[in-house]
Amino acid sequence: MMATTHPSDPAARELFVEMARWPIFDPHSHIDARRPAARNLDEILGYHYYTELAHSAGMPADLVAPELPPRERARNLATYLDRIDNTVQHSWLLEIARTFHGFAHDRISLDSVDALYDRADREDDGTAWDREVWDRSKLEAVFLTNDFDDPLEGWDASRYVPCLRTDDLVLKLHEPSTIERLGRSTGVDVIDYATLREAIGVIFERFVEKGARACAISLPPDFAPRTSTPKRAVTPIRRALHRMDFRPDEHDEVRSVVFWTIAEFCAEFKLPFDLMIGPVRNVYPAGVAGGRDLFDRRVSLYEYRELFNHFAGVTFPVSTLSPDAGAELVAFAWIFPNVVPNGHWWYSNIPAFIAADLKARLQAVPKVKQIGYYSDAYKLEFVLPKFNMFRKILAEVLAEDAIKGRGWSADRALGVARHVLLDNPRRIFGRGEGG
Amino acid sequence: MMATTHPSDPAARELFVEMARWPIFDPHSHIDARRPAARNLDEILGYHYYTELAHSAGMPADLVAPELPPRERARNLATYLDRIDNTVQHSWLLEIARTFHGFAHDRISLDSVDALYDRADREDDGTAWDREVWDRSKLEAVFLTNDFDDPLEGWDASRYVPCLRTDDLVLKLHEPSTIERLGRSTGVDVIDYATLREAIGVIFERFVEKGARACAISLPPDFAPRTSTPKRAVTPIRRALHRMDFRPDEHDEVRSVVFWTIAEFCAEFKLPFDLMIGPVRNVYPAGVAGGRDLFDRRVSLYEYRELFNHFAGVTFPVSTLSPDAGAELVAFAWIFPNVVPNGHWWYSNIPAFIAADLKARLQAVPKVKQIGYYSDAYKLEFVLPKFNMFRKILAEVLAEDAIKGRGWSADRALGVARHVLLDNPRRIFGRGEGG
Amino acid sequence: MMATTHPSDPAARELFVEMARWPIFDPHSHIDARRPAARNLDEILGYHYYTELAHSAGMPADLVAPELPPRERARNLATYLDRIDNTVQHSWLLEIARTFHGFAHDRISLDSVDALYDRADREDDGTAWDREVWDRSKLEAVFLTNDFDDPLEGWDASRYVPCLRTDDLVLKLHEPSTIERLGRSTGVDVIDYATLREAIGVIFERFVEKGARACAISLPPDFAPRTSTPKRAVTPIRRALHRMDFRPDEHDEVRSVVFWTIAEFCAEFKLPFDLMIGPVRNVYPAGVAGGRDLFDRRVSLYEYRELFNHFAGVTFPVSTLSPDAGAELVAFAWIFPNVVPNGHWWYSNIPAFIAADLKARLQAVPKVKQIGYYSDAYKLEFVLPKFNMFRKILAEVLAEDAIKGRGWSADRALGVARHVLLDNPRRIFGRGEGG
Repeated sequence: MMATTHPSDPAARELFVEMARWPIFDPHSHIDARRPAARNLDEILGYHYYTELAHSAGMPADLVAPELPPRERARNLATYLDRIDNTVQHSWLLEIARTFHGFAHDRISLDSVDALYDRADREDDGTAWDREVWDRSKLEAVFLTNDFDDPLEGWDASRYVPCLRTDDLVLKLHEPSTIERLGRSTGVDVIDYATLREAIGVIFERFVEKGARACAISLPPDFAPRTSTPKRAVTPIRRALHRMDFRPDEHDEVRSVVFWTIAEFCAEFKLPFDLMIGPVRNVYPAGVAGGRDLFDRRVSLYEYRELFNHFAGVTFPVSTLSPDAGAELVAFAWIFPNVVPNGHWWYSNIPAFIAADLKARLQAVPKVKQIGYYSDAYKLEFVLPKFNMFRKILAEVLAEDAIKGRGWSADRALGVARHVLLDNPRRIFGRGEGG
Repeated sequence: MMATTHPSDPAARELFVEMARWPIFDPHSHIDARRPAARNLDEILGYHYYTELAHSAGMPADLVAPELPPRERARNLATYLDRIDNTVQHSWLLEIARTFHGFAHDRISLDSVDALYDRADREDDGTAWDREVWDRSKLEAVFLTNDFDDPLEGWDASRYVPCLRTDDLVLKLHEPSTIERLGRSTGVDVIDYATLREAIGVIFERFVEKGARACAISLPPDFAPRTSTPKRAVTPIRRALHRMDFRPDEHDEVRSVVFWTIAEFCAEFKLPFDLMIGPVRNVYPAGVAGGRDLFDRRVSLYEYRELFNHFAGVTFPVSTLSPDAGAELVAFAWIFPNVVPNGHWWYSNIPAFIAADLKARLQAVPKVKQIGYYSDAYKLEFVLPKFNMFRKILAEVLAEDAIKGRGWSADRALGVARHVLLDNPRRIFGRGEGG
Repeated sequence: MMATTHPSDPAARELFVEMARWPIFDPHSHIDARRPAARNLDEILGYHYYTELAHSAGMPADLVAPELPPRERARNLATYLDRIDNTVQHSWLLEIARTFHGFAHDRISLDSVDALYDRADREDDGTAWDREVWDRSKLEAVFLTNDFDDPLEGWDASRYVPCLRTDDLVLKLHEPSTIERLGRSTGVDVIDYATLREAIGVIFERFVEKGARACAISLPPDFAPRTSTPKRAVTPIRRALHRMDFRPDEHDEVRSVVFWTIAEFCAEFKLPFDLMIGPVRNVYPAGVAGGRDLFDRRVSLYEYRELFNHFAGVTFPVSTLSPDAGAELVAFAWIFPNVVPNGHWWYSNIPAFIAADLKARLQAVPKVKQIGYYSDAYKLEFVLPKFNMFRKILAEVLAEDAIKGRGWSADRALGVARHVLLDNPRRIFGRGEGG
């Protein structure tokens, strides 16, 4: 049963109904492959979107503290849901409750949360529930976000596809835990740039061997990739590795050279390098977990020109965080063969911004190089409602712009939809088998 | 009689008709409470939107010079109205002429301006006319913008609600007239930071006692709030107060510490602090009065993070001037509990930008923390057509996104509209009774 | 026969059908007046939009190398057209094939390209074909983009209107070829600022005498016009002219003073000065010809305030490259009498961005100072489909916003359309007969 509202326009509805039959290829998520589906309602309501929106609407952060019993956290949050029931994030929640837990009401409130909590309790079903959510959502592949020292074991990597997240290496190399994890997971005694490079090579080899099909990183607005100059970085790298104090410009140097080195390995191992541009971490330190990051909208892809030119052989699926940066991405993807617009991310992942960005992409970026959407989800249940939101907007934009506006047939419109939702992500992320 | 065009979509029309029955709570205007409604047509046509648009379209500035007789100014301007009759601002004018003065034509031209001038002459009606406009517009409260030395006397403060405007204190402390007005209105001999702080305290006390419910400031794009360091500011403050030359960085220091001090008083007196971010004054010095300011669009709310974090107890209703900055405000309001998107301001106050911003806010900001609209009007007649413009867009967005798009009932959509138009501004601006 | 899809909305369709009967006044193109229409399909497919989009979608640049035979280049490109057949640029191509070459298929593929190539071979028709395209497109005037040393001879300047492009003078004065061309074309021995100024004066005189009606320049995002200070520029100018090395700040000085000098001549000769703001050249050096430029979106018209103030008598038709900069242009055109929003340029010239910008302009900029559109075309065949794209969006925006939204009659809406498409460009670009 489909619990999402269908488009009201008949042409859009027809497109949507067809797309809803397709499998879902989800090229970016934060799902834990060892425990992909939610075992209880608290794992659904604990998604940062709900805690942060409720907190923003007046809920004290300690009402969802980790030390509380899950049911109490869920009840606490439910008390505040009416304040955010206008949001699109709330609509995902309702679609989950209806699709997966037979919820029949219009809103989740303190009155209904207990019954829903009971229905959504899947602790005893365990992995059977994971499979059920997978099947009902018609999932084909869900990409993970794996730390560089993740053992990558215990799941089917053709379904839950590993992706190497490199934030820690680039942005936190100087933190003691990074260096320690690096040494332990690679067996390399990392003491300088040469051994650092060796260790990163070991990581890439292991990831690719285990089925990884992408490398990913999120980059702050003040980051600007520059040609690697290992020589200039010798001292800063050594200071970072040996936990000595180092200056901001040295930190910049370290970020630059490690980032460039990773791009070189992406080229060598033929992995797409997902760039997620924009977040500043911990802008609101008093926020709930996962709800503290924001951005500075003054960013430009122009800062990435050297990277895109130098690594002509690496595909860069690019997501930008600031909604007003979306138009620039259209232009860069239209010119650079290796720049691919990738989904609609986080603060840009709401229908108003998706529709504006999507319209422009469909009008100006070759259809074979757009990656329509990824869920960014932490729990499997969210993949379906988020993809449905996107598929609905895609159906509406195609019905309006292509069918009505340009006289296309429904089949032709669906052909573009299939590129964007399936063909492109399958092809772009399908070649990571090794160098 | 409603002289505004209704939405053509039936669902939107139904919502609009209902909203048009509600009272108007207007949390920001420049109305003079002692003379709120326009006494003649010149006071309507003298609104800077008309003079600046006509001037931009070719009208010499001296045709609306203050020394001309009002009727002549009105006739001069009317000659140019056909050049700007496509603008939304022109549609407010027509709605005023129809609603309040029984005007029956489609356009105001040199042929019809004299008759209209006669009909709109309310000099003899005086305050009775003020009351009539108030009643016909169903006004509940209109916030003023009061200079810090405004005596705040001579009107009903529960209708015309005082609001402390602090631009002069923060941005023009070094100007002799500011210091003189400060001393005279507070009785404090302001000679250093301590006495400055004392004087500001006196101002806050008086404003709150007189019923003020907000503090407001407009800030240039190059302003970035920083933690107050009175110690570092000692010398710059003294130089400013004693009319000595001071360097740009000292001016920055003064702006910073005074702004921070005011925020501290907002916390103490529990007043929301309206931030109106973006204008640069006098960018086009040869322009007509009120039509000389513009902006630099390269601003970011990221510069305000320290302020929002530090003053967690102060509500900041935020307006941004540059239309492309609206998307960032959605994200900051979604995360920070004390950041509230506030209306649609000035260059962003046109339907195309309002609709885009509003759609995003309704999809991603909790409904209990959005302040839908304020008129920014100088004369009472403008409140109704401006609010009608907003209510119409709100009706259309809710009909499209919520009723058609998400299957909501009209009642549920109206519930959100009521939050945005009435419940939120009443609550947010209702607690200024004192510390 | 009109081969473009009509708007589906009846009111929009009615407006469009009427506009399609009007002549086209095209105030900016790159057409070669000596060979305006395409002599063969290669000249159509060679438009940088097709080669750059196909290249971006995977076509190696050497498949369209200049040394290949034209038919082979066309066949090579056709092989990749299916990858970009979602784009609006592709729709122009199809409209050309249908309108001018009787093409009956839905897409141009390897199967159909040969037959189309044969039909589109106009080598033998020569200038008769130019006239036919001109007439079928109902062209009234097409502006050229002429280098400062263009002899401006060999065509009817009332149809193909000269426009002085000044990029080389401002941005490349230091290049040997510029100085040499300058001397040769003006007869002035350019050795310092005084002789440079004299040479520029000679250029303006010649252009105006030959019927030029505009001066134009494209400016990089880091350019900020400043008051001319010939004195400060004496040394940098001399270093530039004498091919000596010079520092970046000296380059800045040269750009500034030459630009300001050109603006002075625009004032003297009463020529509008088209500012095309934003491009960075050669950001992607490995791209196809014409497909290497991009931009940095962090620009603001605030940097142009001094220029707009100083040259109150010069009309500046302004185009901005970054789509997100469009809203700022609305505000500057609303305030400055001499700032005129000019069309929708390059990366901003796709329906999603045009519609958003156009809506705002129609709501907030006086109707008498908007220049609706220009083709920017290199071959005459492109003028019609590009203008049709714009006229369709204009019809849709007017039908939605003005007719449905504000109750206007179709005639009133068409009146605004006529200003934007015909009256304004005719008036603004019609007075360049000399000082």
